[in-house]
Amino acid sequence: MSQNNNSSHYVWLNNRIIPENSAHISKEDRGFLLGDGVFDTMAAIQGQPIEAELHFQRLSENCAIMNLNTGYEQGRWLQQIEELINKNNLGHKYASIRTTITRGRGQRGLLPAKCKSPTILITAKAFDPHFMARPARVIISTKTRRNEGSPLSQIKSLNYGDNIIARMEAAELGADEALLLNNKSLISCGTSSNVFIAVNDEVYTPPLSDGVLNGIVRRKILSMAAPKSKIIEKSITAEDAENAKAVFITNSLIGIRPVSHLNGVEIPIAEISDIFGDI
Amino acid sequence: MSQNNNSSHYVWLNNRIIPENSAHISKEDRGFLLGDGVFDTMAAIQGQPIEAELHFQRLSENCAIMNLNTGYEQGRWLQQIEELINKNNLGHKYASIRTTITRGRGQRGLLPAKCKSPTILITAKAFDPHFMARPARVIISTKTRRNEGSPLSQIKSLNYGDNIIARMEAAELGADEALLLNNKSLISCGTSSNVFIAVNDEVYTPPLSDGVLNGIVRRKILSMAAPKSKIIEKSITAEDAENAKAVFITNSLIGIRPVSHLNGVEIPIAEISDIFGDI
Repeated sequence: MSQNNNSSHYVWLNNRIIPENSAHISKEDRGFLLGDGVFDTMAAIQGQPIEAELHFQRLSENCAIMNLNTGYEQGRWLQQIEELINKNNLGHKYASIRTTITRGRGQRGLLPAKCKSPTILITAKAFDPHFMARPARVIISTKTRRNEGSPLSQIKSLNYGDNIIARMEAAELGADEALLLNNKSLISCGTSSNVFIAVNDEVYTPPLSDGVLNGIVRRKILSMAAPKSKIIEKSITAEDAENAKAVFITNSLIGIRPVSHLNGVEIPIAEISDIFGDI
Repeated sequence: MSQNNNSSHYVWLNNRIIPENSAHISKEDRGFLLGDGVFDTMAAIQGQPIEAELHFQRLSENCAIMNLNTGYEQGRWLQQIEELINKNNLGHKYASIRTTITRGRGQRGLLPAKCKSPTILITAKAFDPHFMARPARVIISTKTRRNEGSPLSQIKSLNYGDNIIARMEAAELGADEALLLNNKSLISCGTSSNVFIAVNDEVYTPPLSDGVLNGIVRRKILSMAAPKSKIIEKSITAEDAENAKAVFITNSLIGIRPVSHLNGVEIPIAEISDIFGDI
């Protein structure tokens, strides 16, 4: 079946750029059967990928954590994305680029002994950033936790089941995003965002070891040369967030977004520039 | 590409029985993109599925935990499996039946608002049970942990990334299986097995709340009318296992399998019937 809204949309699948209608995944793909793979989501504005080097570096790091050897190179990846943006007429739009890498087809069982070649899929779709204009309503999930003891909690692997459960919980409660506690009851990150809280003149974000996705915007904020507030990696509790001067969530598609409600309770909203400075 | 060993192999995909070569998954399938689905693995001996009712019941429970409404009925499932076994000439063999259910195709993002129909895939393959004859070498993974705070740790969801990491660690060390600790450093279960340890005249297996897969053989053992030993759900540590009289792993394909080595150290092997009685 084709997508209703765009019959001439293209994707890259295993080094071929093809109409999305003919892009099929093997029923034996370990990404499908077992979540054996990683992905990346990157914004492109006016045809220009944002922080592409950092995204590719993270993608490579994530592959290494899953022991996935692809031989994929940044130059080739960027060429493919550029061609995809042009082919899909996204050069003057805001686009979301998703790269999915799996271990490819495998035989029965967990061991990937006979996997010959990875599956690499790149999609580029128009993306409406307007919802950024409104501060986010956020809940803290009561249905699931983040696994701080797993290296996968720090990467974008295909194992997003917990994130889906928490995000559906948020939607049922009329919220935009859910934060996940880890098994120590510390806040880790959102289902598709990192979290920052402003306390006095400092800004805290949980350390990766609390089960935190190693987000690109989070990295950028932590490496700012002259932030307006002191940015500190520090474990935070739900109570810390409830009592904060302001709360923000970040990801590569929305950048930094203020939070207006936490668990249904209105919280103060601060200007991004007042807290982070010129970013 | 076809499988080398069987060019006329069939699978069920979305209520059609088709040659496996023509069974494709959409690149937008949320099982592939996000691990948004569940699966079940069941043995069939001489064409007869083993404990089919329990397997279907668990599959339905697992779908409910992921809020996946399929309308799939046990009678239809059993008919499809019977037809698949016949079509693949597995009526006189030992076969592994895998049922995979995902939320189907979705749009960008975590919320499955516009998913119309699930993907249901059933495969049946010949399976060699002979490795059961040898006791298992087992390690305790040092690379990842089980997420006791997630409902997904109790079900067979498509999020098997941690299991893959631990199983690859086992293989690197010459072992057959890895047990995972949870974030409290308690043993939960193996990458594709449950664990039982014999201590004095009792047998312990960790409670589901320790992050334990709700395995069918585990259920059967816990519901035995007259077990030889008292079977108790109780948290266990690595030290408990190292000092046990015997250790066993269980799953639906291997049944009960004794463990001969734990972290490379030889441990006592007991007869299954001496510990569990007539099962």
